[in-house]
Amino acid sequence: MTTELDFIVALRAIATAPEARGLDDDVAVFGDLVLTHDMIAEGVHYLPFDPPASVGYKLAQVTLSDLAAKGAVPVGALLGYCLGEAAWDRAFLDGLKEGLGDCPLVGGDTIALSPGAPRVLGLTAIGRAGERVPDRAGARPGDELWLVGTLGGSAAGLALLLADAGASGPLVDAYRRPRALLAEGRAMAPYASAMMDVSDGLLIDLQRLVTASGCGARVDLATMPLSVAFVEARGCSLDARLFAATGGDDYALLAAIPTDAKDALRKSLPSAAHLRHIGVLVEGSGIELHDAGAPVPLPENLGHEHRS
Amino acid sequence: MTTELDFIVALRAIATAPEARGLDDDVAVFGDLVLTHDMIAEGVHYLPFDPPASVGYKLAQVTLSDLAAKGAVPVGALLGYCLGEAAWDRAFLDGLKEGLGDCPLVGGDTIALSPGAPRVLGLTAIGRAGERVPDRAGARPGDELWLVGTLGGSAAGLALLLADAGASGPLVDAYRRPRALLAEGRAMAPYASAMMDVSDGLLIDLQRLVTASGCGARVDLATMPLSVAFVEARGCSLDARLFAATGGDDYALLAAIPTDAKDALRKSLPSAAHLRHIGVLVEGSGIELHDAGAPVPLPENLGHEHRS
Repeated sequence: MTTELDFIVALRAIATAPEARGLDDDVAVFGDLVLTHDMIAEGVHYLPFDPPASVGYKLAQVTLSDLAAKGAVPVGALLGYCLGEAAWDRAFLDGLKEGLGDCPLVGGDTIALSPGAPRVLGLTAIGRAGERVPDRAGARPGDELWLVGTLGGSAAGLALLLADAGASGPLVDAYRRPRALLAEGRAMAPYASAMMDVSDGLLIDLQRLVTASGCGARVDLATMPLSVAFVEARGCSLDARLFAATGGDDYALLAAIPTDAKDALRKSLPSAAHLRHIGVLVEGSGIELHDAGAPVPLPENLGHEHRS
Repeated sequence: MTTELDFIVALRAIATAPEARGLDDDVAVFGDLVLTHDMIAEGVHYLPFDPPASVGYKLAQVTLSDLAAKGAVPVGALLGYCLGEAAWDRAFLDGLKEGLGDCPLVGGDTIALSPGAPRVLGLTAIGRAGERVPDRAGARPGDELWLVGTLGGSAAGLALLLADAGASGPLVDAYRRPRALLAEGRAMAPYASAMMDVSDGLLIDLQRLVTASGCGARVDLATMPLSVAFVEARGCSLDARLFAATGGDDYALLAAIPTDAKDALRKSLPSAAHLRHIGVLVEGSGIELHDAGAPVPLPENLGHEHRS
């Protein structure tokens, strides 16, 4: 099977227009519009027994999260839908509508699948850009690494569901009902030299950011922002923090912030935002991990390869 | 299972923004940009043994056809892709690139499926609108119905392939490599009171156009534009013409043209375009069929319900 990386290399060879941003970003930019497309497959990105309303809600929020990472305001979405059982379809739509919030559904396509085929659902979201649309490639050595949101809750929730399909609680909610940090993204975009959402795991997404930016990063695992529910369930050992740093589906926002911009950024963020300084950009390449200052080897698995 | 119609009724209830055009159109409109999303599923919209390059080519052209029907110039596309066997993926991309022509690939999403799951592929296309973006709802009694392109070739090619997977020739090409009529659409858009592409079958698509426009249509089956290859394979009996009028996947353009605009339209079309006057819009509702003037009952099956 083709790996995602091989395929993206082949895609890049044909995606040479400036609007594509070299496919180094999750969005394409047309004038003041920002466009993104996300797909989810039954049995891969959601569990067949997940409540359909949560599947619709999550598809909306994970797609809008790509707009959040560009500081854009959602203005429309196109749904690619595979029809199935009527009650599931209706509940999915209710969840999608809730997840889209003020973002109007403006079109799409609806198809039937062969009987028994797992569904694949797609959403294209359109956002109106602010004055700046930060990409992944603008981080510079000396910039600070900041994170808004918490890590690991979604992966911990998924583990609970895989052990017990009836599991519930805040970690299951983190997996099923993640939240796109739209207001936070808009506040950060004017100041970030690079920004992206953490969809596949902090370490793998950070590696993409530093590769695109042509620099390296030093991250301290002692700073990982963990939710109360995560710490109650898994503690805050180094293992637990490594789990949080490599679990996917969190949709936190990762930004590189020049040091002279951080005071202005702090003032502009919503007061309830979890903003955490997790590291710094450095000369070189790759990620250097520490734990309260002591070096930690980089784990082999940095996150999910097959989500982008 | 939900029918597509039930689902679209439910979608319409949440797609109330003006950009959605009531979902009566295949596109959403944001300023001078026109957006459309199409999906195809293995075993439903393409045959598992179709050459992968033709699947990529067709996905591009059927999606661009929605832009052709609005007179828009393609400026970008986002691909939603499910990874599979490496040689298939590469050949698909080659075909997609050929099918996109000058339209740059600017982004998208790539996912892995569960082993053995049939693929579902999506493409979002972005077009720059001309001075007018005709919808489906503007046709008025007295306007003439015009068609550019030929009918039935694709459905005849599919029938050949279902009987013999090794079939080839112009009808198989019509099925596997349809062509979006972009230049023709741009030429017609300034004059059409309503326009759409014929993706599901002329009669079912015309019914959608007259329903959206609040009028009826009279069509003469004697005027059906058939290719030489179609006539050689299936003749031109009334049955053959009804087959052509209800077969899908043709991507001809159907337009309502006010009588005072048709001379200007004729002059603006590319000289090689197959332009055919097939009927007229009338007061009332629904479709009245004739064959060289004699009434013909409307067939029960007007085309494919599950493609839109």
